[in-house]
Amino acid sequence: MGKKKKEFVEEITPMEQDFAKWYTDVIKKTDLVDYSPVKGFMAIKPYGFAIWENLQAYVDKRFKDTGHKNCYFPLLIPESLLKKEAEHVEGFAPEVAWVTHGGDEELAERLAIRPTSETIICEMYSRWLNSYRDLPFLYNQWCNVVRWEKSTRPFLRTSEFLWQEGHTLHETEEEAQEETLQMLNIYKETAEELLAMPVIVGIKSEKEKFAGAHATYTMEALMHDGKALQAGTSHNLAQHFTKAFDISYLSREGKQAYPYHTSWGISTRLIGGIIMVHGDNRGLVLPPGVAPTQVAIVPIATHKEGVLDKASEIFEQLKDLARVELDDRENYSPGWKFNEWEMKGAPLRIEIGPRDIENKQVMVVRRDTLEKTPVPIGELEARIPELLKEINTNLFEKAKKMRDENTFYAKSLEELKEIMDTTQGFVKANWCVDPQCEETIKKETGATMRCIPFEQEDLGGDCPFCGKEGKSVTYFAKAY
Amino acid sequence: MGKKKKEFVEEITPMEQDFAKWYTDVIKKTDLVDYSPVKGFMAIKPYGFAIWENLQAYVDKRFKDTGHKNCYFPLLIPESLLKKEAEHVEGFAPEVAWVTHGGDEELAERLAIRPTSETIICEMYSRWLNSYRDLPFLYNQWCNVVRWEKSTRPFLRTSEFLWQEGHTLHETEEEAQEETLQMLNIYKETAEELLAMPVIVGIKSEKEKFAGAHATYTMEALMHDGKALQAGTSHNLAQHFTKAFDISYLSREGKQAYPYHTSWGISTRLIGGIIMVHGDNRGLVLPPGVAPTQVAIVPIATHKEGVLDKASEIFEQLKDLARVELDDRENYSPGWKFNEWEMKGAPLRIEIGPRDIENKQVMVVRRDTLEKTPVPIGELEARIPELLKEINTNLFEKAKKMRDENTFYAKSLEELKEIMDTTQGFVKANWCVDPQCEETIKKETGATMRCIPFEQEDLGGDCPFCGKEGKSVTYFAKAY
Ligand SMILES: [Zn+2]
Ligand SMILES: [Zn+2]
Repeated sequence: MGKKKKEFVEEITPMEQDFAKWYTDVIKKTDLVDYSPVKGFMAIKPYGFAIWENLQAYVDKRFKDTGHKNCYFPLLIPESLLKKEAEHVEGFAPEVAWVTHGGDEELAERLAIRPTSETIICEMYSRWLNSYRDLPFLYNQWCNVVRWEKSTRPFLRTSEFLWQEGHTLHETEEEAQEETLQMLNIYKETAEELLAMPVIVGIKSEKEKFAGAHATYTMEALMHDGKALQAGTSHNLAQHFTKAFDISYLSREGKQAYPYHTSWGISTRLIGGIIMVHGDNRGLVLPPGVAPTQVAIVPIATHKEGVLDKASEIFEQLKDLARVELDDRENYSPGWKFNEWEMKGAPLRIEIGPRDIENKQVMVVRRDTLEKTPVPIGELEARIPELLKEINTNLFEKAKKMRDENTFYAKSLEELKEIMDTTQGFVKANWCVDPQCEETIKKETGATMRCIPFEQEDLGGDCPFCGKEGKSVTYFAKAY
Repeated sequence: MGKKKKEFVEEITPMEQDFAKWYTDVIKKTDLVDYSPVKGFMAIKPYGFAIWENLQAYVDKRFKDTGHKNCYFPLLIPESLLKKEAEHVEGFAPEVAWVTHGGDEELAERLAIRPTSETIICEMYSRWLNSYRDLPFLYNQWCNVVRWEKSTRPFLRTSEFLWQEGHTLHETEEEAQEETLQMLNIYKETAEELLAMPVIVGIKSEKEKFAGAHATYTMEALMHDGKALQAGTSHNLAQHFTKAFDISYLSREGKQAYPYHTSWGISTRLIGGIIMVHGDNRGLVLPPGVAPTQVAIVPIATHKEGVLDKASEIFEQLKDLARVELDDRENYSPGWKFNEWEMKGAPLRIEIGPRDIENKQVMVVRRDTLEKTPVPIGELEARIPELLKEINTNLFEKAKKMRDENTFYAKSLEELKEIMDTTQGFVKANWCVDPQCEETIKKETGATMRCIPFEQEDLGGDCPFCGKEGKSVTYFAKAY
């Protein structure tokens, strides 16, 4: 017993002063998440989880519209199964949580909590696939996964996180490649259209690709502090797993054949991305697409007759057009509520007091620009959806401008190192694609290759880092 | 390699012959679920998972409409935390899966995979609750839980299952009790209205209540084989956990106080209930509320001009009114498809061939009655939703009749034993409520008390099992 009363709106460390502290302040003070007693595991609070639910609803619909269905696969994977694909186990074994006892009994074989589900899903697919008529398999699951991390940060890197993992099987190599790129494109549209978060899409190097993949495609976003966030990946797994797990079927030609395989995922780390792309020193700035409360209605001088009634009326008027909340809490002043909704990043705030009612208007305040505009009550139904769209566009443009201003060219390893030691950001270079050069870059500058973008510009010249022939324009950055 | 071609529509063992085998045949042959390499863990296939998604969508909306919000809490619980509430750990410790290693390191304290989340949630709530102004806490999570079971059956009892668990905190005892009963009532309405599954609602005995609960309320359904299924529970936890976890707050009176606590859950076991309440010897009979495909359109003689076009037209006409699927697969005969949709329990099937098109009608076949009726194409939009409602009502009435016909009175322990050894079913008796009597009943007959229903009838008389004073009319049954 004996806790002190919590102050709701507290100071947030300015991001210029200490970006990591700013991030932690924001997520704690806006009630997105909390640390749990197990190091690296977090509890997602209602306000944070609602963002995830909105994201999930959008993405799930996109999956279903492209013919995918959801399943659920077991949490626990026998060690022997995890070891069937050699590169895969090498990549994941160091971060696996192991179950060794069930009740009082020691298990004959220890079980991994899934770090990702390729192995268990392939085991099941090997039982389910018989004929080419069964193909394609277009399945996805929403679940939790565990990867034992030494150093963690809420949303960005945690020992448990929530995600979706799609796993598909196809008759041909071409179909699998098409699926891999289709899903990456859905992720890109999710990032850019729903989350107003511009991304660079492209392919990973051999070193950076998923353990067991033929090729890994990624979308990369740039955060306020100049670090990159890998925001979603889509893997063409070719026949690496289908052969290792003996997934075969009777082909159109009447022969036994191995299908081609893809997997793709996005996770709760996207919430970290939203915070670090759009947030400011007042707190969160949530894109309307996922904001739990898109419009917060704050009545002023609620003791005056008619104020609360009018606020309720406006709530009723708008509630089917947007996610609206009427903040009629007593014990909190309007000013306190303005601050809180600002900190919590609600895209729009409606202020309504006795004078507004007289003038048949309300004050509408945008979170992104902090602009305050009177809007006639009769125009709200038309204006609010428009404003939400405008905010979304503005957030995207702002983030893109920020990214472009923080995208540099490097003409030498020293230049790359200098950028990484100062402003950070994306650095583009006509890279040699040599793993050894990649190793040196990482060691010397802390930057990793983020992706070779689909959209190549003509930079020409040799690799600025090692002098070998330049092959592909590549993005480098320090990354979360 | 070298699997044999799968036959899709195979024999299902008649339930009168072997109910357990019937159940297993149905779930396997309708592609609801599959066993996984880890004993007791199952993979839920798309057709099974779609049922869960439909159930989830309905229930989640009911939760939100009553002011609840979703969160997510960590999968792993430190052993010390699990042990904080004495009754609770005693109830759950024997079935906990323990994580002992993270990567290559042995953990200092072993971690339980959540068998249920009261302990971890209470730990978090103790940090989140400060003032009476924060109350009530009305939170829920959808997640997986693990309980190490010796003997398992898909959906009914598995070592991992999916569920939701609501956990709420309240200022007063009355509010907590109201919440407990409100959530039980939502479960009852879900069972009866969405799943067409009649349930008896009431309270559990001391022996049968949840480990750590003050009182456990339950809904109990009767399966085809005369066994009961505990289909959902709602617990009034009083202050058992809030005191053990020191969850306190500053009350309205300015004093430190402990809140009152509830938890409530339903799980994927409800899918097992749906199967065993409505299914028949042809396979599944799915209630329209959760059927992944409510209407299957099967075109006949698709090589004839106009048939596929007309079938597509009808699909377009109906697709916003119900979950409709146009089964235009080649390589399968209409007869084969009829069988398959019957087995998969689609509530309605529309058959459309050249002669139907001439007559401007289709044949509509109900899965519940197997009735075949011609319906003019122009009337489909009105008729299909009506039919789905009629099917739902009929399924409920049928199940209720079945239950009533299998609800008996027992005038002695011998009579109870005889019923349990033969027909099984619910047995009602004016019970003494004595734990010792309960123990004897279980030992001698295999039946357990299922609940003391809210609706009490006047049976009068002494306890038929031990001769002590009869106190409450109670339902007994063998249970899953
Ligand atoms: Zn180079
Ligand atoms: Zn008795």
